[in-house]
Amino acid sequence: MMDVKKVLAKYSKELDGPIEKFLPHEKPDNLMNATVQYPKAGGKRMRPAMVLAAAGAVGGDKSKAIPLAVAIEYIHNFTLIHDDYMDGDDKRRGMTTIHVGYGGPTAILAGDALFARAFEVIAQLDTSDSVVRDVLKVVTRAVWDLARGQQMDVNNENGEEVTMDEYIETIRLKTSVLFAAGAAGGALIGGADKRTVEAVHEYAMLLGVAFQMFDDVLGLTGDPVKLGKSVGNDVRKGKSTVMVTHALKNIKDEKTMKEFRSVLGKMNATESDIQKARKIMEAAGSVDFAMALATDYTKRAIAKLDILKPSEDKEFMIALAEYAMGRDV
Amino acid sequence: MMDVKKVLAKYSKELDGPIEKFLPHEKPDNLMNATVQYPKAGGKRMRPAMVLAAAGAVGGDKSKAIPLAVAIEYIHNFTLIHDDYMDGDDKRRGMTTIHVGYGGPTAILAGDALFARAFEVIAQLDTSDSVVRDVLKVVTRAVWDLARGQQMDVNNENGEEVTMDEYIETIRLKTSVLFAAGAAGGALIGGADKRTVEAVHEYAMLLGVAFQMFDDVLGLTGDPVKLGKSVGNDVRKGKSTVMVTHALKNIKDEKTMKEFRSVLGKMNATESDIQKARKIMEAAGSVDFAMALATDYTKRAIAKLDILKPSEDKEFMIALAEYAMGRDV
Repeated sequence: MMDVKKVLAKYSKELDGPIEKFLPHEKPDNLMNATVQYPKAGGKRMRPAMVLAAAGAVGGDKSKAIPLAVAIEYIHNFTLIHDDYMDGDDKRRGMTTIHVGYGGPTAILAGDALFARAFEVIAQLDTSDSVVRDVLKVVTRAVWDLARGQQMDVNNENGEEVTMDEYIETIRLKTSVLFAAGAAGGALIGGADKRTVEAVHEYAMLLGVAFQMFDDVLGLTGDPVKLGKSVGNDVRKGKSTVMVTHALKNIKDEKTMKEFRSVLGKMNATESDIQKARKIMEAAGSVDFAMALATDYTKRAIAKLDILKPSEDKEFMIALAEYAMGRDV
Repeated sequence: MMDVKKVLAKYSKELDGPIEKFLPHEKPDNLMNATVQYPKAGGKRMRPAMVLAAAGAVGGDKSKAIPLAVAIEYIHNFTLIHDDYMDGDDKRRGMTTIHVGYGGPTAILAGDALFARAFEVIAQLDTSDSVVRDVLKVVTRAVWDLARGQQMDVNNENGEEVTMDEYIETIRLKTSVLFAAGAAGGALIGGADKRTVEAVHEYAMLLGVAFQMFDDVLGLTGDPVKLGKSVGNDVRKGKSTVMVTHALKNIKDEKTMKEFRSVLGKMNATESDIQKARKIMEAAGSVDFAMALATDYTKRAIAKLDILKPSEDKEFMIALAEYAMGRDV
């Protein structure tokens, strides 16, 4: 079986150069330093890897998709900078976040600058003008949706209880659309026909939902040391994850429900409060339910790839979907 | 002579429909309401008017440039939303600013959403794919520069004293580049050749500098009632405007310099403090100097239009440059 982490690491290394190249240093220094910090820091770089894999899997020249991979990573990083500021998060990947290191105004501007640069890079793609226009359409729509998804998330965290369908719509917008725009964009640059582009787009939409659902599970049941952050924060924020929504519907006795509700949304919940809530959700079958739902999304994602001829890139795309479900960080 | 205000009002009215049309209501409500507030509220709409005039002045079909005019206005409004938040301004055009009305996170997201929509509209321009790519290049570069200019402004307001050249570079980035991208984009859509596009671009760059310099003069010597804001705020912020830089070089006696410096950067300076500083700058010839410099920029801007055949749109572009210098708001 393919070692996804190894392939991701290989892609990530190949992208180090282009990610720096498209962000040459200009004035003023503080803005530029703030702008390059997240892109240079790395991370899993799943989104740009998917751009390259999609370009290859449809039979195209992967090297032509590198600038789009970079642009998608810039967009991802721009949203992280803005999200960290609005969420008031101090740390990311062990680094001080931008608004803490450089102040709020520079965090806003560094995000805006990365956003602009992403589209400047797209304008310079070494492909036909018509493909540039198609890529532009799918990526701009994704960024519009990212803002909507993040706003839904903000509203949700402010205590608006939402249904499971609404929660899934939020993660489609907040997570899936950028995966999908990257995959579809890669397929477009690779020369795929419309039907293939759509299939690859749908694969990534479904994968994004599975990825985020599993992320939610990890955020409750994962190892805080490996994750590099405390667990249970969604519970503290009272967020309507699939697990929480399921639990609220399926907890049978009143006493347990009262206990669960007493922890939900309790910002200063202790480790022991969180473990209590976790056990309640496990007993109600909510964690299993979320895992089963995420697995279903993963399977549906992989099935979308039937349209592609066998290739190493296709294999990677399948393995990436499976990895999204099996990882421990 | 052409009544510029009347022409601007006509263009502004024609743009009301398209500005709403390209922002259809989607979920969530709070984000959408925040996103449309500034674009719908109007203002002078000089930037989109310049897009249309440039398309017409090069002999093109102005109606094809309407979506770009809308996109440029969205970009202008996105920067206003973000700038108001970072500057902590409570009011704009008599309305509550977005971060006050909807909170900081929504202000960030509404700006991001408008930004994304602007480029989505550009992707859908009814023109050739190659023109779309050229427009994309010039507009993305402008937004990158806007972020740099705003950061320089933030740094400047945080007390970094800058030279006059540095100040002019800041307003080129903060103000001119978007005028210029709009004008060049309009010319591209109008079918202009490279030399003409460049001339129109330079016209708008120079005009933008003149516009901002005159804005600085108005912000000191204008009528607070007509302006709808108090005067002297640049002095309170200790901003290195052309007038301030000139005054610091040209005030001869130590006592006056001491007096001037005591007001500069004094956030709680009274009306009478500001009038004192104003008189000192007037006596040092700094206001006249700024006006003369702005007039020089205006003349150079107009000279760039020699390349264009006579037309009503060309006349409007000339009149707009003169208006930028003669207005009282």
